[in-house]
Amino acid sequence: MGRSGSEIEQRLKDIGHSLPHPAAPLANYVPAVVSGGLLFVSGQLPFGADGKLSPSHVGKVGAVVTETEASRAAALSALNCLAQAKVFLGDLGRLRRCVRLGGFIFATENFNALAGVMNGASDLIGAALGEAGAHARSTVGVAQLPLGACVEVEAIFEIAP
Amino acid sequence: MGRSGSEIEQRLKDIGHSLPHPAAPLANYVPAVVSGGLLFVSGQLPFGADGKLSPSHVGKVGAVVTETEASRAAALSALNCLAQAKVFLGDLGRLRRCVRLGGFIFATENFNALAGVMNGASDLIGAALGEAGAHARSTVGVAQLPLGACVEVEAIFEIAP
Amino acid sequence: MGRSGSEIEQRLKDIGHSLPHPAAPLANYVPAVVSGGLLFVSGQLPFGADGKLSPSHVGKVGAVVTETEASRAAALSALNCLAQAKVFLGDLGRLRRCVRLGGFIFATENFNALAGVMNGASDLIGAALGEAGAHARSTVGVAQLPLGACVEVEAIFEIAP
Repeated sequence: MGRSGSEIEQRLKDIGHSLPHPAAPLANYVPAVVSGGLLFVSGQLPFGADGKLSPSHVGKVGAVVTETEASRAAALSALNCLAQAKVFLGDLGRLRRCVRLGGFIFATENFNALAGVMNGASDLIGAALGEAGAHARSTVGVAQLPLGACVEVEAIFEIAP
Repeated sequence: MGRSGSEIEQRLKDIGHSLPHPAAPLANYVPAVVSGGLLFVSGQLPFGADGKLSPSHVGKVGAVVTETEASRAAALSALNCLAQAKVFLGDLGRLRRCVRLGGFIFATENFNALAGVMNGASDLIGAALGEAGAHARSTVGVAQLPLGACVEVEAIFEIAP
Repeated sequence: MGRSGSEIEQRLKDIGHSLPHPAAPLANYVPAVVSGGLLFVSGQLPFGADGKLSPSHVGKVGAVVTETEASRAAALSALNCLAQAKVFLGDLGRLRRCVRLGGFIFATENFNALAGVMNGASDLIGAALGEAGAHARSTVGVAQLPLGACVEVEAIFEIAP
């Protein structure tokens, strides 16, 4: 039902993305945990292929970050979720589907086009996983994010045993 | 152990609510996903029976939205979670219990009576599901919500196979 | 694989903590719910051993609450998650692992050292559970929290049948 790992990575390449090398495991929390057939991926910031936050992805959406850049940042955060999944699973072909994305947007109190920003993440997951990418999601505007990033995305995937 | 679908809808009618026709499935994200016996419902805004946000449910709680109206909006958001569950499952009788609600309140930095607002959602789920409505929850005040809504509620339900 | 309940409580004592008596069950929401092998713990505020919020844990981090105090508050919130788990399970030895922590920090828009604050929670769970404490997490800055608390932490644990 799902795509093979190489097919998923090819789809990403087709839209101009390759999986970044995500941040190494930290101390008492880790990038991903499996329990009961679900893979919980920690909230991911929009680190680029160079492992850094672009200055255009730091700060408040609606003030210093444009909606277009924020949507790109959301796609990058989702890409980092996939990258963490690959590190954990070894092969993205083990992903059966995306169950849920949580999107946190560092937004001004006057910017409420949050859904459009988060579509950057949803569309990337859809492009990568196809039908298996259709997920539940919640999108909220927050008062601050780690490192002042404009977006953070967390994910839950269903995986093959 | 749970109530039948018609009993759940009757309980809602008894307290003056009927299930709205919720928003149709969107592109790369969807209103609900089932995995491993859990139904994950996307964050729901307080759309009314007419499918629209009431102007009294748009804006910051503690500034332009009163605590009472925000609590009503939380109930409506929870009602939309049930409506999405019905569309997905066909019959609310398949709900075994409500596992978790996540409540996001668009609040001023001086308004911290967030629990009272979220009780609107918890009480509606309790009225609809009875004992099976007792859920874990998290309530936070956020900097913005889609469309400027004053409340968003997401849900996880346990369902019968 | 996990530690016994008494071993977990001894580890907490070793670092100067004892489990508080957490807030009693509320009306239509409850401190914890089990479904499908997962224990969902409601968002916990940093109540102390006396069941109260310390004044040093109320208000915005970066303004009236220091990063050090906020980190202590995060540890207390995580401790309350464990306390709720013990009330629910009877014995913390039934915890197989911590799956996920969600951290909400009441922060000024200029304070973005959120990860350091949330490490207070992650380190406490790590100290208590050892390897089984390694969890996924998401950390965000929010606009307000119940009672004006500086931190709220929610948890998902995997439990033994």
